[in-house]
Amino acid sequence: MATVKLWTDSDANQSPRVKAVFDDIRAVRGSDFINNFSRGLANDPATLERTWNSLKEVMIAPSALDPVTKELIYIAVSVSNGCGYCIHSHTAAARAKGMTEAQYGDLLAVVGMASSTNRIVTALGIPIDPEFEVVS
Amino acid sequence: MATVKLWTDSDANQSPRVKAVFDDIRAVRGSDFINNFSRGLANDPATLERTWNSLKEVMIAPSALDPVTKELIYIAVSVSNGCGYCIHSHTAAARAKGMTEAQYGDLLAVVGMASSTNRIVTALGIPIDPEFEVVS
Amino acid sequence: MATVKLWTDSDANQSPRVKAVFDDIRAVRGSDFINNFSRGLANDPATLERTWNSLKEVMIAPSALDPVTKELIYIAVSVSNGCGYCIHSHTAAARAKGMTEAQYGDLLAVVGMASSTNRIVTALGIPIDPEFEVVS
Amino acid sequence: MATVKLWTDSDANQSPRVKAVFDDIRAVRGSDFINNFSRGLANDPATLERTWNSLKEVMIAPSALDPVTKELIYIAVSVSNGCGYCIHSHTAAARAKGMTEAQYGDLLAVVGMASSTNRIVTALGIPIDPEFEVVS
Amino acid sequence: MATVKLWTDSDANQSPRVKAVFDDIRAVRGSDFINNFSRGLANDPATLERTWNSLKEVMIAPSALDPVTKELIYIAVSVSNGCGYCIHSHTAAARAKGMTEAQYGDLLAVVGMASSTNRIVTALGIPIDPEFEVVS
Amino acid sequence: MATVKLWTDSDANQSPRVKAVFDDIRAVRGSDFINNFSRGLANDPATLERTWNSLKEVMIAPSALDPVTKELIYIAVSVSNGCGYCIHSHTAAARAKGMTEAQYGDLLAVVGMASSTNRIVTALGIPIDPEFEVVS
Repeated sequence: MATVKLWTDSDANQSPRVKAVFDDIRAVRGSDFINNFSRGLANDPATLERTWNSLKEVMIAPSALDPVTKELIYIAVSVSNGCGYCIHSHTAAARAKGMTEAQYGDLLAVVGMASSTNRIVTALGIPIDPEFEVVS
Repeated sequence: MATVKLWTDSDANQSPRVKAVFDDIRAVRGSDFINNFSRGLANDPATLERTWNSLKEVMIAPSALDPVTKELIYIAVSVSNGCGYCIHSHTAAARAKGMTEAQYGDLLAVVGMASSTNRIVTALGIPIDPEFEVVS
Repeated sequence: MATVKLWTDSDANQSPRVKAVFDDIRAVRGSDFINNFSRGLANDPATLERTWNSLKEVMIAPSALDPVTKELIYIAVSVSNGCGYCIHSHTAAARAKGMTEAQYGDLLAVVGMASSTNRIVTALGIPIDPEFEVVS
Repeated sequence: MATVKLWTDSDANQSPRVKAVFDDIRAVRGSDFINNFSRGLANDPATLERTWNSLKEVMIAPSALDPVTKELIYIAVSVSNGCGYCIHSHTAAARAKGMTEAQYGDLLAVVGMASSTNRIVTALGIPIDPEFEVVS
Repeated sequence: MATVKLWTDSDANQSPRVKAVFDDIRAVRGSDFINNFSRGLANDPATLERTWNSLKEVMIAPSALDPVTKELIYIAVSVSNGCGYCIHSHTAAARAKGMTEAQYGDLLAVVGMASSTNRIVTALGIPIDPEFEVVS
Repeated sequence: MATVKLWTDSDANQSPRVKAVFDDIRAVRGSDFINNFSRGLANDPATLERTWNSLKEVMIAPSALDPVTKELIYIAVSVSNGCGYCIHSHTAAARAKGMTEAQYGDLLAVVGMASSTNRIVTALGIPIDPEFEVVS
């Protein structure tokens, strides 16, 4: 159970700020579906607006990385942060955007590999090689 | 300072198992450079071998994701786990493999976005939408 | 399901050490309610005692921060550590102590903001400005 | 060393978007100081703008929580995420905004307490008490 | 619900690589039981093989630490990473290998203690004492 | 640099509460050495006392696990939480108490293995097998 009320469409219709975001989500995504995260965020319209605007800018607007790659990174972070909801929603999004099962297998292999070496490096207190100290 | 000795090439020459891995790293990478992580892992030859074999299989062998994408995922995990050494080494690797600065900017934007929503979702205890409960 | 038995009041009545802590919790809180965490900790009376004594000292005794602020910090840490139980119990506690929904919205906004910048700063390996290197 | 160039003021003067943000930071904060985080973010003007706008909205605009409380929460999250730079910058900010040393001591005590119980609860797999399953 | 199909034994019988691993797990463990993790990993036979081979090498082969101690460390890491499944499976494994309830209580006490001091040390930015800068 | 002053012995001599803890640390450990963590904690005598008393109870008093095993668990948690200071101080402590280099190698292998499987399990959303749902 959530710590806040999940807003129904009728609830949203009572708040012009929330309704405007829900309408924009539906228009941008071309779907009537509003997920539970947005329905929970609706309790704080300022955070709902800021989050949705950032998501549009970062995840939806065309940029240097293609949509599937951005979803793979999103999943990798969500796994590392242990957010079950986020893992489920972005794994579904990645598949909807074209992620293949072979790519998904690769993602998990890299996440597992990195998680393992990250901790061993940290345990050993390995100093950064001068060769890596370069900027673009 | 590391918690273990970082093996020099002379040290490695005393241990056939370590020398074999260092030789293979040099052959596979086409470079004489052996990083501090491998020089620290050399204290435990079994872990050095297992780690290098996994890295070859996961990060170097051709697979469904291209090398830059795998490095982007590796960086995202290393950032989430707070491993400074890993961040530096894999950011350098990603650039060496062709990551552009625009792609790097995108990576950071997605990592920041996901980290923020991961925590807010967790705070709110958002239940998973049935729409996301699908498998391939 | 828990990894240990959750002690009922009858179980607690068999152990003078556990009973003494349960009695003190009820007296200090002015309520008959004992939560599942204490019922699980009862399996190790020493840890139950130490934890309850620390909670009384840190969270209940009057101190420089007011009770709601301490609960907000507790929630922020619990969210960052991904403890669903702790998030639920301390969000309920914060509300019981007077946290308003506007304050809760602020809490989530700050947690989201910090989580995002924490990771981007870590990715970039930003060196600490000398201006921040001051002690009280 | 950072993974990107830290922009000097001369660098910023070459980019209208970066210069506009630096100017706004100086105006809003009433200080000439631009920290290394902003100088690193300048490499990606879109992220610099989005981050600064969010910081103004979340941390600087008057809201339900006072400025010191928001800094305490920011520090708590930064500690949990292990961001040394963020800890230093926000501990300095909290002191500049009036955090007393007694409040700082309380903050650390709560962070330590929560970190400990978070992990023990997680280890035990404690089920959420129905009493905590309430929304506002 | 998992993000992938959990392979039944009939599914496994269709894939020689998966069947070979399942057969080896049964032979090595002397039990017909295959857990859900292996049934999920079966979707990516290369990761299933690599994971099982590493587990045999690290957790099952005789080594410098006894089996119960290795399970205690596994639980400590799983708790810190917030993996509920791993906590349950390795707590069950530890008990099956002989972990006593008193040892389990000790484990939780150390995990709680370390989690608390880890965060306070990080908050304070404590510099490493020269006395600790020694290698074997 | 720390965020607080590290107390010298002269500073401690000005505060009876701090001096009492420093004296007890020296008596219990049979050594004149006071580490930087205790010197930083001295700024908040209540937290210094509570931390030292818990450390004595959990890490020093004889219990079901031997001292080296408790240090191994402490290191595993410190690595997972990314506390460099704690890793260094407890790796030194483990060696001082008799940890062999082969045991240390085992520790790192288990930490790496668990970190990897923890994340893959989390990504896959593996449901807990009923076989693991048993309590002592």
